[in-house]
Amino acid sequence: SPSDAPHTPCVQMRDQAFRYGSIHTQLMEMVLTLRQTVEDHITQLTTRPQQQDLALEEQWHGQTIREQEALLGRLLFQIVSFLPAGAPGDQSVQPPCTSRDSRGDVRGGQPVQANRQTGQMFYQESDFENTVISYDLSNRGIDISALYHLSFRDYDTYQGNKYHKDKNTLDEASWASLVWLCSRSICQQLSQSDMTYIDEDLLQYADWRGQPLQGTDPSYMKIGFQLLPSVYLLQVVILNGCSAVFSALAMVLCDPGEAFLVPTPSHGGFAFSTHLYAKVKLVPVHLESQVSANGYPFQLTVDKLEQALLGAKIEGKKVRGLVLINPQNPLGDIYSQESMMEYLEFAKNLHVIVDEMYMLSVFDEAITFHSVLSMKSLPDPNRTHVIWGTSKDFCISGFRFGALYTHNREVASAMSCFGYLHSISGIAQYKLRQLLQDREWIDNIYLPSYHFRLQEAHRYVTHKLKTLKVPFLNRGSGLYVWINLKQYLKSCTFEEELLLHHRFLDHKLILSSGKTFMCKEPGWFRLVFAARPHLLRSGEWS
Amino acid sequence: SPSDAPHTPCVQMRDQAFRYGSIHTQLMEMVLTLRQTVEDHITQLTTRPQQQDLALEEQWHGQTIREQEALLGRLLFQIVSFLPAGAPGDQSVQPPCTSRDSRGDVRGGQPVQANRQTGQMFYQESDFENTVISYDLSNRGIDISALYHLSFRDYDTYQGNKYHKDKNTLDEASWASLVWLCSRSICQQLSQSDMTYIDEDLLQYADWRGQPLQGTDPSYMKIGFQLLPSVYLLQVVILNGCSAVFSALAMVLCDPGEAFLVPTPSHGGFAFSTHLYAKVKLVPVHLESQVSANGYPFQLTVDKLEQALLGAKIEGKKVRGLVLINPQNPLGDIYSQESMMEYLEFAKNLHVIVDEMYMLSVFDEAITFHSVLSMKSLPDPNRTHVIWGTSKDFCISGFRFGALYTHNREVASAMSCFGYLHSISGIAQYKLRQLLQDREWIDNIYLPSYHFRLQEAHRYVTHKLKTLKVPFLNRGSGLYVWINLKQYLKSCTFEEELLLHHRFLDHKLILSSGKTFMCKEPGWFRLVFAARPHLLRSGEWS
Repeated sequence: SPSDAPHTPCVQMRDQAFRYGSIHTQLMEMVLTLRQTVEDHITQLTTRPQQQDLALEEQWHGQTIREQEALLGRLLFQIVSFLPAGAPGDQSVQPPCTSRDSRGDVRGGQPVQANRQTGQMFYQESDFENTVISYDLSNRGIDISALYHLSFRDYDTYQGNKYHKDKNTLDEASWASLVWLCSRSICQQLSQSDMTYIDEDLLQYADWRGQPLQGTDPSYMKIGFQLLPSVYLLQVVILNGCSAVFSALAMVLCDPGEAFLVPTPSHGGFAFSTHLYAKVKLVPVHLESQVSANGYPFQLTVDKLEQALLGAKIEGKKVRGLVLINPQNPLGDIYSQESMMEYLEFAKNLHVIVDEMYMLSVFDEAITFHSVLSMKSLPDPNRTHVIWGTSKDFCISGFRFGALYTHNREVASAMSCFGYLHSISGIAQYKLRQLLQDREWIDNIYLPSYHFRLQEAHRYVTHKLKTLKVPFLNRGSGLYVWINLKQYLKSCTFEEELLLHHRFLDHKLILSSGKTFMCKEPGWFRLVFAARPHLLRSGEWS
Repeated sequence: SPSDAPHTPCVQMRDQAFRYGSIHTQLMEMVLTLRQTVEDHITQLTTRPQQQDLALEEQWHGQTIREQEALLGRLLFQIVSFLPAGAPGDQSVQPPCTSRDSRGDVRGGQPVQANRQTGQMFYQESDFENTVISYDLSNRGIDISALYHLSFRDYDTYQGNKYHKDKNTLDEASWASLVWLCSRSICQQLSQSDMTYIDEDLLQYADWRGQPLQGTDPSYMKIGFQLLPSVYLLQVVILNGCSAVFSALAMVLCDPGEAFLVPTPSHGGFAFSTHLYAKVKLVPVHLESQVSANGYPFQLTVDKLEQALLGAKIEGKKVRGLVLINPQNPLGDIYSQESMMEYLEFAKNLHVIVDEMYMLSVFDEAITFHSVLSMKSLPDPNRTHVIWGTSKDFCISGFRFGALYTHNREVASAMSCFGYLHSISGIAQYKLRQLLQDREWIDNIYLPSYHFRLQEAHRYVTHKLKTLKVPFLNRGSGLYVWINLKQYLKSCTFEEELLLHHRFLDHKLILSSGKTFMCKEPGWFRLVFAARPHLLRSGEWS
């Protein structure tokens, strides 16, 4: 618990909230560890050691079960000992209703039972809704709900408090977290008369692979993939959002329990997207702020990739792919063609998923972005897959549009199955196609104005940061700056980082903390600067 | 193989195609059985018999493993013996590339290996794409791809051949399978000036629960839920399509391997939706064409529900819910309030999911449809969940809109997590809200015209059926008739049903066969009559 005495009721409440938050974070981590243990337990039970005689094998089975039981028991004890302290108010956790049990539904003893109770703890605590504890969800349902509400608490807070020019002017100050930079200009473009046409075909079931980027003229792709020679051979699959594309890729490239390498800090949504359906693990390739010879902070090297892969192998994890973000989120790094070639060479026996979500958000004119698909000779073109969407580059996250580009016809075909549950409205596809085909508007009006505004916002924010002596990575892409607030932590721990995060929240500013990007060092935050300019200026973020 | 000699090259090809189809169907069934066996194997391995001593337990483990191995071996032998006969052309199946194995990826012996090969067999055979066998997919990816392309072959055929007034006039004849009945009128409505407005908010991330039916005025719901007293208390969650809603419900209400009861024949999409992510089983409640005293064909009774539930219990399946479709698809039945109350009373300890997808497609004026949510006292309102969408009732399947209505706040909250991967475009939501709020247009223009056209099409089709002496169920709802073509089968088998299905396909008519609805009796088909009237008239479907 924090050592200094609280000064005001407000601070008292905040600290109390933090204490709960802290306990819940620990509890959640334990629950996740518990789930992992259960999964490992099942894997171990079902993976028989080969070429041993039967007696040995049976002995091994018995021993494994006893060991796992002991481990589960210890974990449960830890979790239960936290419960009274963490419970808000005096609401005791009730046992599940009997009607469930009367159907012969005994859930195999303690572990799941505790999981269920703990799940509801978080759930009950969530700001999302004042829910009644009804015990109607499956264990999986409770897990998902708890994990979601824990992972996306900031998002829910934002949705519940967001700025509205008429309805919520009091909050005008500082929800500087979403991309509003050019939305008025996009809005005008989308309202033009050629956008309002509705063909009957748009209203009916369509090809699940999607339509906006399909067709006879792929010139639109030159926007990002400059003069790509093989563009006509590319397969394109459209789903409703890049997270859906990523989740589906994890489904078709990995079996449950297999893994992707991910250099971290890295986009936090990957964890939820790979876990919800695919049960694919992320193996972090931890990058460090400390600079080695001739290097730069958080530099990705083949050495680090090899270490992480070796580590994963030793732990028995099957690594199927490498996930790269270029331009990087949250660092803002842009990989040179040479570096990218090294990473691809390293990953020749793996799938490489390159997330190029911010490819048009490179605002430093001295830097040229190269899509991996524009490279002349890919080491393994059949295992190089690119994700792109319009959410960031065109400030239209609400369109729910994500695309996969791949040379691999088998992967494209398997991915198209997911359109059944993840396709996008025909009318939205039509509008997107119109938007992306208007090259003149994009090249001469939209992108220059978008880049100018990014430059302006970046200049404003980095100037402020320099004045405040806050270290940051000075990069030329993305809608964010990766800043170091270690100096404001009492001690260099993730607990303190979370406390600082809550302090920002109290001032209506969402600064995503490094932990949500799987950063190894406490104290780093991602500051998004692509808010409405006047909001940005009035924001109290220091 | 068919006994009579083929007459023309065309017939020869067709019969050949059928032979492959038939072998593939059998192979697929074996693969599915194999997967089931593997799942059962794992379940059995991880479910230790309790309160026995350790020696017995270990002995049991060894014995189980040997039994399962023998069973898998037999199944594999059967599958492999089919392969040479079923392979089209001379393409032999190659072993997986070694790069995969060099990463230590030994997939645990025979079973999965065979699965992989068989999966690729189907895949290669699929009309969908001329794919290269690249071995880049995971086993799960291959399974999904094979299952999808087998389940949705007709859909893919339709997408590849569909009518277009300019581009594909040759096919004008008879793709009488999708809902075109009122799409022009909807098109006009969606093109009106108040529809083209785009608010900046619509372009940004939104509440994952969706917006079109949320808000201050829920009167739109009276369209279907006449004078619903508790409407203000209902929770609404919007996802991109009813299949996504159904899949997400299976995720949050069931743990993997648990089951839903489903009276069959029943909408075929349920099987894919529950399997892809949730791994939830469907336990069919087989209805029969033969009429018992005071009954009608394919009548659902509590007796049948109880039998199916008992059967599932004996087989060790955990049944979590009952799925009802009202109005029924493909039968067209509408449940009376009394019948519905009986089903709900039976299912008091289960969740009940009522799919009311066709609630506005009741065209017989003598029948009143009652939504389950309009019933005065539900036996268990907290476990009664309703799915509705606009795909059928408003002929706009391409909008990808599905809604869950439930009184259960916990279920609604857990369901909202799925918006992260299944949400719908903001602009599509806006248009839907506008469409559904225009009560005057819906009540006085759209629905009367929609119902009139359904009546006309139904009258035309049933008159033809009578002339041809084809038995059918004469109901007053839906866009389809359930017809009996048993007299056209050489023998009453699903093989012959499939052959007839292919004969229709040769004449560019998609008639979904009973097997895809899990019907127990061969020879039944669903005939959709909601095509463009002139297409319907020129269709050669006898």
